[in-house]
Amino acid sequence: MIRLQFGIGLKYEISGTSADFIFNIQAARTSSQRVVTEALSLGQQVEAESYTDPSTDNRYLRVQAQPGTFTVRYDATVDITHHFEAPHRIDEVAIANLPFDVMQYVYPSRYCQSDRLRAEATREFGNMRRGYSRVLAIQEWVRQRTKFQIGSSHTGTSALDTFVEQRGVCRDFAHLMIAMCRALNIPARFVTGIDYGAAPELGVPDFHAYVEAYLGGRWYVFEPSGISPPTGLVRIGTGRDAADVSFATMFGTMKAYAPLVSITAVEDPSRGIFLPEHSADAISTHHGEMARLG
Amino acid sequence: MIRLQFGIGLKYEISGTSADFIFNIQAARTSSQRVVTEALSLGQQVEAESYTDPSTDNRYLRVQAQPGTFTVRYDATVDITHHFEAPHRIDEVAIANLPFDVMQYVYPSRYCQSDRLRAEATREFGNMRRGYSRVLAIQEWVRQRTKFQIGSSHTGTSALDTFVEQRGVCRDFAHLMIAMCRALNIPARFVTGIDYGAAPELGVPDFHAYVEAYLGGRWYVFEPSGISPPTGLVRIGTGRDAADVSFATMFGTMKAYAPLVSITAVEDPSRGIFLPEHSADAISTHHGEMARLG
Amino acid sequence: MIRLQFGIGLKYEISGTSADFIFNIQAARTSSQRVVTEALSLGQQVEAESYTDPSTDNRYLRVQAQPGTFTVRYDATVDITHHFEAPHRIDEVAIANLPFDVMQYVYPSRYCQSDRLRAEATREFGNMRRGYSRVLAIQEWVRQRTKFQIGSSHTGTSALDTFVEQRGVCRDFAHLMIAMCRALNIPARFVTGIDYGAAPELGVPDFHAYVEAYLGGRWYVFEPSGISPPTGLVRIGTGRDAADVSFATMFGTMKAYAPLVSITAVEDPSRGIFLPEHSADAISTHHGEMARLG
Amino acid sequence: MIRLQFGIGLKYEISGTSADFIFNIQAARTSSQRVVTEALSLGQQVEAESYTDPSTDNRYLRVQAQPGTFTVRYDATVDITHHFEAPHRIDEVAIANLPFDVMQYVYPSRYCQSDRLRAEATREFGNMRRGYSRVLAIQEWVRQRTKFQIGSSHTGTSALDTFVEQRGVCRDFAHLMIAMCRALNIPARFVTGIDYGAAPELGVPDFHAYVEAYLGGRWYVFEPSGISPPTGLVRIGTGRDAADVSFATMFGTMKAYAPLVSITAVEDPSRGIFLPEHSADAISTHHGEMARLG
Repeated sequence: MIRLQFGIGLKYEISGTSADFIFNIQAARTSSQRVVTEALSLGQQVEAESYTDPSTDNRYLRVQAQPGTFTVRYDATVDITHHFEAPHRIDEVAIANLPFDVMQYVYPSRYCQSDRLRAEATREFGNMRRGYSRVLAIQEWVRQRTKFQIGSSHTGTSALDTFVEQRGVCRDFAHLMIAMCRALNIPARFVTGIDYGAAPELGVPDFHAYVEAYLGGRWYVFEPSGISPPTGLVRIGTGRDAADVSFATMFGTMKAYAPLVSITAVEDPSRGIFLPEHSADAISTHHGEMARLG
Repeated sequence: MIRLQFGIGLKYEISGTSADFIFNIQAARTSSQRVVTEALSLGQQVEAESYTDPSTDNRYLRVQAQPGTFTVRYDATVDITHHFEAPHRIDEVAIANLPFDVMQYVYPSRYCQSDRLRAEATREFGNMRRGYSRVLAIQEWVRQRTKFQIGSSHTGTSALDTFVEQRGVCRDFAHLMIAMCRALNIPARFVTGIDYGAAPELGVPDFHAYVEAYLGGRWYVFEPSGISPPTGLVRIGTGRDAADVSFATMFGTMKAYAPLVSITAVEDPSRGIFLPEHSADAISTHHGEMARLG
Repeated sequence: MIRLQFGIGLKYEISGTSADFIFNIQAARTSSQRVVTEALSLGQQVEAESYTDPSTDNRYLRVQAQPGTFTVRYDATVDITHHFEAPHRIDEVAIANLPFDVMQYVYPSRYCQSDRLRAEATREFGNMRRGYSRVLAIQEWVRQRTKFQIGSSHTGTSALDTFVEQRGVCRDFAHLMIAMCRALNIPARFVTGIDYGAAPELGVPDFHAYVEAYLGGRWYVFEPSGISPPTGLVRIGTGRDAADVSFATMFGTMKAYAPLVSITAVEDPSRGIFLPEHSADAISTHHGEMARLG
Repeated sequence: MIRLQFGIGLKYEISGTSADFIFNIQAARTSSQRVVTEALSLGQQVEAESYTDPSTDNRYLRVQAQPGTFTVRYDATVDITHHFEAPHRIDEVAIANLPFDVMQYVYPSRYCQSDRLRAEATREFGNMRRGYSRVLAIQEWVRQRTKFQIGSSHTGTSALDTFVEQRGVCRDFAHLMIAMCRALNIPARFVTGIDYGAAPELGVPDFHAYVEAYLGGRWYVFEPSGISPPTGLVRIGTGRDAADVSFATMFGTMKAYAPLVSITAVEDPSRGIFLPEHSADAISTHHGEMARLG
């Protein structure tokens, strides 16, 4: 188990009569991620509606803000329990055995056009032994061919673009890896969060995006951009791709400032500090059955 | 109320060791669509698993078929109750008032890249009075600029392609209309079904795709390809676009034959026959709240 | 006749062992554009090879520069003679009557995918009366639907992108207008130069790109971005699109600084100053026959 | 030297008032390809204008045909002299040493978006020893990753599509190979012709497209689709890509039938028959200097 404390500060300058926001910045509450403490504050006297999506556990806040400066501050401490598994013991799951609610993660989506990448995926990985190691090979392939370059992509950039241009940021690495997995009928999805790798020495911490692939009856974590150890990832949003889980969806006329993000590993009084580390084991923080069916 | 009877015949020749299918061909059961009778038969001695998605009411069948010929036959009679509303009474719903589970239909998806069509949508419809009439104007715009041409598009064709090429089939008309609605923050979704317009005199009946837009607290039906009166549409699948609701998703090596589809309006003993007709009213067969929250 | 004096200053910081440049920055010498004086200076002791393309009159300089700072300075005074014609007297030229060497400007090119814009062009302009006025309508259509926005496009942006995104800079306006003309079998080409509209009060002067369409046996000038009066344009390069006539094609590792561009209308001792002005007439500075066949 | 005899039969059904054609079906006359005999016949009493492009040697015929059936028949016998060179002796040519009129074949074009394939080309071939062998490696890479599949591409398909979809016909193989060469600053161009590999046993003979790369001061022939021995290729059109050298560009309303193509190796009385064969040598039929500068 690891205890991580993180904070998110957002700031907007609203110029219209009002602006609507849908935020997805709160730590997800799952059986593997316990929210120990959390605090939310809004910089205007406005009401926030909250909603938790029953199928993804995503927590949404809807706010209508007034003209002027609008700030949002969220801080949380979470305990994350990791499931470790020896990679060689993890198989792919045949279509016939996939839970039905996992099927949606096999289909193409806005930024993960797996249908168009089928030829590439089949040529590169079609004859490879199935299992966790094949997905690890896809992750390695993405990491080797793609250059991490801030500013080299934009909100319209998709897996197909990243496949061609071979550069991008964490979101683009994730989209390409997801599309390649799906092209081989391996369910894969997009997770947003805060990463322990976002430590000050690596530049300005920011929101992060990573990948989960459904293998051996669980969702296993992959970090194709290689920024963070997989044990240092907090889960905020889970979806098919970035179109589903933007940390802030904005409607209206405004200026958005860069988010301020911080994260630290904290001491659990009973156990001391455990720092996120790289591991030879496969790591999962989400079992495969949906909570609502449990 | 209208009573429609329809049949679907599918045929495959499977050449590999086995093939997996996920079918979405059964009539949805909703508070507006009652399945009076139905019958399903599979041409092999195989087991079919069934699953109804709680958020869309889509009914899925998963089958693993053996080498050789594999046929599927489904027949159903459904009673459809239409909600009629005077168009001028139907408003758009502000972001602040949208049900949370409707929000996903505002975001871009695989075949409906609303993010990229925002400039076009804003230029054409940004200053138009909001409400049902604006969505009707979008439908008319799609219909006027797009040529219905069998064979002019393929499974990879998206709203962006249809915007440029200006030709396609019902699925392409639906994707373009959906993308334009979402670009204006109007929730819109893709519905598959069988259409009464698929009558023999109009050529070989086939599966159909149409549009629902969320307005005035309900999902209203739009038929951008103009093939069928909106009252003549049976609902099978509901999703974000064609990536979500293929009538048959196939895994394996096979030859697929053209589906055989038929539909007739039938007599309700107590009321006679009511034929689907065009109407000046707006038509809805889906209220806005989710069934599972009801 | 108008006498214009312009200057171009380029600066690079070369970090590799050497770098190759192909410049196309010298004023074209044509029967309508006389180079009165010109001066070129290179900031390194390197040899420049020069070449004038016989079919376009483009003047190229090839230089291999050494590591360190490399500057290029070019100044010229040119006299431009404009051919004025009443728009209603200018017809389109039938395919059967086009000079063979003009045909290449009917075909699609890297940034002007006229083949894909045929549906749009036909729908918008297919039934319009042919002639100069139709091309003017295309120019107006481009100008109305496209937002001039520095930084909204990049070197890979094509006419198709600009058609969708509806924003760009002069180069993008030109590409879209060219593609639409070609889609209607009207030869159109891309011209680079310096524009009198690039006056200090309009921001930092820069290289400019505009359009010529082949009508009535001549190449007529169009300025879809509306920045400069067509009489205020100096011709540097002529080609199918920006892929043909970059002002600087660079090979090697270097940092390029923003070019410094200046232009003024100068006094012709015998005639006084004539400032470029907008005109109701159509304007041409290039007859249709090729120089080498003259 | 090889003597080849080929024939081309074209047929159209014209439904409008008239139709314009620009044909590029006649054997090019170059210093390496001598037209021994040729015969052209048109199936209507119409005049054909002919034009030979001075920079490419392409021979064009322009015809305005009347409603009804229109046929074109062309037969020729050509003697082709091949320049053979040991591959290890052929170097790439530095930018600084390229003839200026070859430069255009380094730039991207409609179907060869070399600018967008630069990352891929650099990753795969950037560190490879320069020379003929590197271009051979590109050819092999194209051939290995691309499936020859009639009907899998269309007239809009570009190198970028073929890179992603990994299937196509000879034209697509050529476009991808050209784009990859240009991305490495190796001039490459598109040649159309008739290929001896188009023998009856390989299916219906058809027009062919292949590649020339500029190396060691000459244009060397490459046949990425692997259909024909490079010594069995007749040259008809030379251009930047398929946009430049369509065998028939049509303007008007018509139905086009599939072309009839035949080719045989014929006996030269003084030397017997020499059949086209594969060779370990590099083969060129075009020196690098332009005829008009000779």
